Amino acid sequence: MITLARTALRARAAPSPFRHAAALRFQSTSVSHDPMTGEATGLKHLDASAVVVTQSNAPRTPPPSQSLVFGANFSDHMLSIPWNSGNGWDAPKIHPYSPLQLDPSAVIFHYAPSLFEGMKAYKDVNGKVRLFRPDMNMKRMNTSAARIALPTFEGEQLISLIKKLVAMDKGWIPSEPGHSLYIRPALIGTEAALGVHPTKDALLFVICSPVGPYYKTGFKPVALEADPNKVRAWPGGTGQYKLGGNYAPGILPQLEAARRGYQQNLWLFGEEHWLTEVGTMNLFVALKKGDGVELVTPPLNGMILPGVTRDSILHIAKDHVSGKYPIDSLPKNLTVSEREISIHEVIKAEQSGELIEMFGAGTAAVVSPVDRVGYKGKDIKIPAGDGIGPIAKAMLERITDIQLGKVEHEWSVVVDEV
Amino acid sequence: MITLARTALRARAAPSPFRHAAALRFQSTSVSHDPMTGEATGLKHLDASAVVVTQSNAPRTPPPSQSLVFGANFSDHMLSIPWNSGNGWDAPKIHPYSPLQLDPSAVIFHYAPSLFEGMKAYKDVNGKVRLFRPDMNMKRMNTSAARIALPTFEGEQLISLIKKLVAMDKGWIPSEPGHSLYIRPALIGTEAALGVHPTKDALLFVICSPVGPYYKTGFKPVALEADPNKVRAWPGGTGQYKLGGNYAPGILPQLEAARRGYQQNLWLFGEEHWLTEVGTMNLFVALKKGDGVELVTPPLNGMILPGVTRDSILHIAKDHVSGKYPIDSLPKNLTVSEREISIHEVIKAEQSGELIEMFGAGTAAVVSPVDRVGYKGKDIKIPAGDGIGPIAKAMLERITDIQLGKVEHEWSVVVDEV
Repeated sequence: MITLARTALRARAAPSPFRHAAALRFQSTSVSHDPMTGEATGLKHLDASAVVVTQSNAPRTPPPSQSLVFGANFSDHMLSIPWNSGNGWDAPKIHPYSPLQLDPSAVIFHYAPSLFEGMKAYKDVNGKVRLFRPDMNMKRMNTSAARIALPTFEGEQLISLIKKLVAMDKGWIPSEPGHSLYIRPALIGTEAALGVHPTKDALLFVICSPVGPYYKTGFKPVALEADPNKVRAWPGGTGQYKLGGNYAPGILPQLEAARRGYQQNLWLFGEEHWLTEVGTMNLFVALKKGDGVELVTPPLNGMILPGVTRDSILHIAKDHVSGKYPIDSLPKNLTVSEREISIHEVIKAEQSGELIEMFGAGTAAVVSPVDRVGYKGKDIKIPAGDGIGPIAKAMLERITDIQLGKVEHEWSVVVDEV
Repeated sequence: MITLARTALRARAAPSPFRHAAALRFQSTSVSHDPMTGEATGLKHLDASAVVVTQSNAPRTPPPSQSLVFGANFSDHMLSIPWNSGNGWDAPKIHPYSPLQLDPSAVIFHYAPSLFEGMKAYKDVNGKVRLFRPDMNMKRMNTSAARIALPTFEGEQLISLIKKLVAMDKGWIPSEPGHSLYIRPALIGTEAALGVHPTKDALLFVICSPVGPYYKTGFKPVALEADPNKVRAWPGGTGQYKLGGNYAPGILPQLEAARRGYQQNLWLFGEEHWLTEVGTMNLFVALKKGDGVELVTPPLNGMILPGVTRDSILHIAKDHVSGKYPIDSLPKNLTVSEREISIHEVIKAEQSGELIEMFGAGTAAVVSPVDRVGYKGKDIKIPAGDGIGPIAKAMLERITDIQLGKVEHEWSVVVDEV
């Protein structure tokens, strides 16, 4: 069952029968091209059609939907795709959920060659399974991989494999409103050799976890602590990539904020104390401007994660402004800005009554309203309606309508039955 | 044999017999105190006397010393110490070198809760085994752990366990000049649960790798590329901690430098283009000042790793200056400075003939001479004698003399036979 262990450790172990089969299968495939550079690499490309499926012979019963805790339960199957610098991508395997077995010298345990994505599969009103903008996740996953010398791949191939995995574990997608199957693709370096160097072995894997709604009992706005001494990202750093190494350093600042009564960190940057992100989400601020409203989010300046929800909100807002898809509950006179915004501008807006709304944006919650920001010992108060402001609410409704296929939209991708 | 797998995965698996034994053993121990804060934690502390030893029943023959590649071979045994937030440190285990088995949702694969140390064991002229300043590694390991919400421990306990491990695998320490046993302690978060949060499970492990001399065929100075757009660390970040997440992002910049003929990166910081570190080493620059010499290294300002070799070089230089231990080959009129130094100051010193020497400092090579720095399309040329300058050479000789017990020094710690 644990075939994975063998391939992940193949530098030290006897060849796996799967590898041999894969090698034969790939003899007829064409030379692949690097999806980032277009260069011919001469290595086997990621080929969804080569997938080897091993059904679980001990399928489990998903836990009751009301008992779900985020990221604590996992579905019956997972996807594993080993990569080696000499051969390229090995044949993908869908197999029973099982531990990874890795040499203690594997680079993942020492130098954090590690990236991940967060996606969701939804059951729509007709029982069809849907993904939301998976191409965006594939694009970012490749960008992250290139930044830390991990292998890149053709995103369409991985989407095809994820669809197959999700279809197999369709019974794990809770159908209650607000529930979904959280999909976690990850890519890690696995070479068993110390020394900081580009890894010769890697493993791409995907696991799935049934999750409940982020807001179980109505919306609860969060309080943020903005401490300019805590810095998430830096120009020339890795803030715009979804790397494992960006996350562990944020845990202590969150614990410290929590001790002072704030749920999350508002990450500031630079002497002007620019707003960047909130916790592990992108950030939006709405300001009154004359008789209109400006919806502001920090620009993709290298320090901001290019969030799928962030991008979706920008598109929805722009389609409202252009008249392509107007939304009644959004302000008539709306301006959409990707621009720097400092904490001082936020404080000024609070004082002049022009601070309308603030919210985080991300895959887990879609939107996360903010009602308070602590900065230099004082709290900035932010309107948050009955727990959520009107702009965040409009975005949440529009995005979940698309995710659940209540309205037809190119962002929602139907998973065909297999 | 793979008892590790069971404890690392204990959240999902049946209790291991080792855990039960450990629980009984700890009933009589006192409540531990957090080594960082001094607070009583109520959790079991790391207790070297509770170690459970399982000898390998298939000991291997170490590879011939001349064939050694850094970090590619590992000794017969390893040390594993699981930790859980509810119980504290479990009983340490010395056992045959074996894979780690972890759930694919384990936090180490997603958020990089990961730190490590680099140490060496040497065989001295009398066949005794020696460590070099292990207390410094323990101190830094605890500082790193606290920064990413991993558990801390009493350093003396881990030193005692490392001594035991090294004594057991004494046959793996090559005795040829310049050879040693590289010791790699690592601490990783292992909880099987997605979501960015303080891990409830962790694993401290130590593996050992026989290594040859860094300079096999004489000294080879390296060329560095100084690109101000590549940033290793920043204020409020994690540059001063030995975290896994600091290392993967450095791989691509090194590959890019190599493509242009430079072996390593000289990491600059800020608008003044301050020198910070070189590759994964600390940095020293020697400048002529009047009729004397100034030895400069960047100060521990939060962005610089507090290297053991860096600290040792500073002590040796200061002892020379104070007359406590003068070294003939060091300049008579020496000044030792921990201060900021910009690339512009280095260029100016080159032009005025006052640039004497530059070298990296770290555990792997002790010193690594630099003879060229590329900056904005031009090369700064740096004297490097016959491959190594006089100051780097004096430091290398003094440190290796202490490491090998050729001179008595408190930094060298003898491992008693067990």
